[in-house]
Amino acid sequence: MLSQPTFVPVGTQATVKSLTPEELEAIGVEIFFCNTYHLYLRPGDKAIKKFGGLHEFTRWKGQLITDSGGFQVFSLGKDHNGAGKLVKITEDGVEFRSHLDGSLHFFTPEKSIQIQHNLAADNIIVFDECTPYPATKEYARQALDRTHRWAIRSLNEHKRLNKKLSQDLKLYGVVQGSYYKELRQQSAEFIASQDFDGIAIGGVSVGEPKDKMRKAVEWVLPIILKAKKPIHLLGVGEVDDLFDFFGQGITSMDCTLPTRMARGGQFLHRTGDAKHDMHNKFKNQIMSACYRTDQTPLEPGCQCPTCKQYDKAYIHHLFKTQELLGYRLMTLHNIYFMTHATQLIRDALKNGTFNQLKKDWLGRL
Amino acid sequence: MLSQPTFVPVGTQATVKSLTPEELEAIGVEIFFCNTYHLYLRPGDKAIKKFGGLHEFTRWKGQLITDSGGFQVFSLGKDHNGAGKLVKITEDGVEFRSHLDGSLHFFTPEKSIQIQHNLAADNIIVFDECTPYPATKEYARQALDRTHRWAIRSLNEHKRLNKKLSQDLKLYGVVQGSYYKELRQQSAEFIASQDFDGIAIGGVSVGEPKDKMRKAVEWVLPIILKAKKPIHLLGVGEVDDLFDFFGQGITSMDCTLPTRMARGGQFLHRTGDAKHDMHNKFKNQIMSACYRTDQTPLEPGCQCPTCKQYDKAYIHHLFKTQELLGYRLMTLHNIYFMTHATQLIRDALKNGTFNQLKKDWLGRL
Repeated sequence: MLSQPTFVPVGTQATVKSLTPEELEAIGVEIFFCNTYHLYLRPGDKAIKKFGGLHEFTRWKGQLITDSGGFQVFSLGKDHNGAGKLVKITEDGVEFRSHLDGSLHFFTPEKSIQIQHNLAADNIIVFDECTPYPATKEYARQALDRTHRWAIRSLNEHKRLNKKLSQDLKLYGVVQGSYYKELRQQSAEFIASQDFDGIAIGGVSVGEPKDKMRKAVEWVLPIILKAKKPIHLLGVGEVDDLFDFFGQGITSMDCTLPTRMARGGQFLHRTGDAKHDMHNKFKNQIMSACYRTDQTPLEPGCQCPTCKQYDKAYIHHLFKTQELLGYRLMTLHNIYFMTHATQLIRDALKNGTFNQLKKDWLGRL
Repeated sequence: MLSQPTFVPVGTQATVKSLTPEELEAIGVEIFFCNTYHLYLRPGDKAIKKFGGLHEFTRWKGQLITDSGGFQVFSLGKDHNGAGKLVKITEDGVEFRSHLDGSLHFFTPEKSIQIQHNLAADNIIVFDECTPYPATKEYARQALDRTHRWAIRSLNEHKRLNKKLSQDLKLYGVVQGSYYKELRQQSAEFIASQDFDGIAIGGVSVGEPKDKMRKAVEWVLPIILKAKKPIHLLGVGEVDDLFDFFGQGITSMDCTLPTRMARGGQFLHRTGDAKHDMHNKFKNQIMSACYRTDQTPLEPGCQCPTCKQYDKAYIHHLFKTQELLGYRLMTLHNIYFMTHATQLIRDALKNGTFNQLKKDWLGRL
């Protein structure tokens, strides 16, 4: 059982970049997110099944969640190498080309669920179409109707396999509907009415302005909260999002941000140097010249393994010299920052002090 | 006090690539090698002095050794970007350009020792000229005579600084002489007669055939062993070298091999698949297709943290997908392999079973 709410780091290729399972556990990670599209291509879901599933493969004892592959099929396959659209959508499913070798593949809802059962994460997601932003209302409606039919096909295949393989994977339905209130609410009603174990909100964080994203979540939350199921927000997780969405009842969200930032030398901080963080985005760049001789931790007082041992000057040096240890130390810090902030939110929600905490962090409610 | 003999992994830029100090300690590392040339350029020896020296900077509690910078000055500075020789040698020292930004620098024996005292490793090395291979006897003799004069200047500067700064760094003299027996022996006599704390053998592993290298070491060992000081072999350390040289009285050697191999996907093994290791070099390539579904450790029975937890199939996947965790796990294994083999040699030398061990490993004496 996951803590609620929970921040979910991303380990696309069955590894949260640069870290071991023990390190993840030590910084409060309970679950991480793997990408079905990538693992289907390499090493292949059948190979992973042979190894005993993703848990055995990665030696990770916590929970896992996989997506349906849909998001990557649509985003990576699109207009690849200038040879025109490489994605062909039919009622049955989606034909796409691998971004690795151009080979042709076909995903249906059933196939996506079969692959996810082979991967055997604890939580899996229905096959859906993540509509691009912006999309016309007409296209969004067509895509949504198809996505709902695919949701039912995914659910049926999942039930069949759960029974057949004696597995107990949890299936999340996905609310889509682009940026049309009517469609979003219709989708929320439909998904909430079905026999899913959890509900995910998809089609957000696809290039839209942030206030639009907040609106879309607000349209659907009153409807799906009634289902009293876990609610996952897909692909979202800047620091302010933790407060905005966990505060409203979202129970988990995944984001590549802390790991991707770490690889580029950006570290999350709260109390850091305001003069280097003009936009209050909770991030700074370790390669800034001002850190060359800075003998304080990334975030003074932070209890992560990096801050307890190392100073900015050493990490600055590791990044300037492109040493792998730098990425490791930074990734540890950034993920800890997110899990720790989530822990604070969890406690505050329990103690009735959430609004105060949010105001302290964001300077607004 | 270091165990004798000891294998010394390389951490050029004040980090053994991808690993933490705790991990190094856990796999039996007692000391690692840092490169003065690189650290002088980034972050600068004065910055490191300000941080309290390399130990404080890296948080490494074991021993450290730095080289004089000479080897890199000569090898990296040479014919850089086609603009002709960028290294100018005079009696006073060497003028060279940074390989990073082309800026002009001048090292003298005194400067090298001052930089090394700023870095404050436990063991430091005299400034010498590492002659290229091959070199004419005339050039080798000129370079050797200068190297001996530089050795004395290094020693004097070291004594002055050790006294002035209340440091107790140990200084190694370096035996050079290219591949001329007369010069090598002359150098050995000279260096052994001086007041150094240890003796290093340099100018080997510079492109010469391996039997030549073995010869060069054999020429000088009888002479320098008499001095009863630690003897370090610079830049050497394939698996067979451990047996060939530790067996003759070399007390330490450093080599980038286990870390460099790891980054390219090569793992050290003893019992591994003979059919994939035709040349008995104790190495295999994890990216070979045969390992895609191999659920055994890199080296069955190996007690390193990687082999105790992971199988080849997962590490194969991490390398095929260029995931940083792969480099980490492989580096851990390869360094452990070297420290463990060294431990076996140490025990065998003590117990009088060395020849048997060497024959078991190399199939020869």
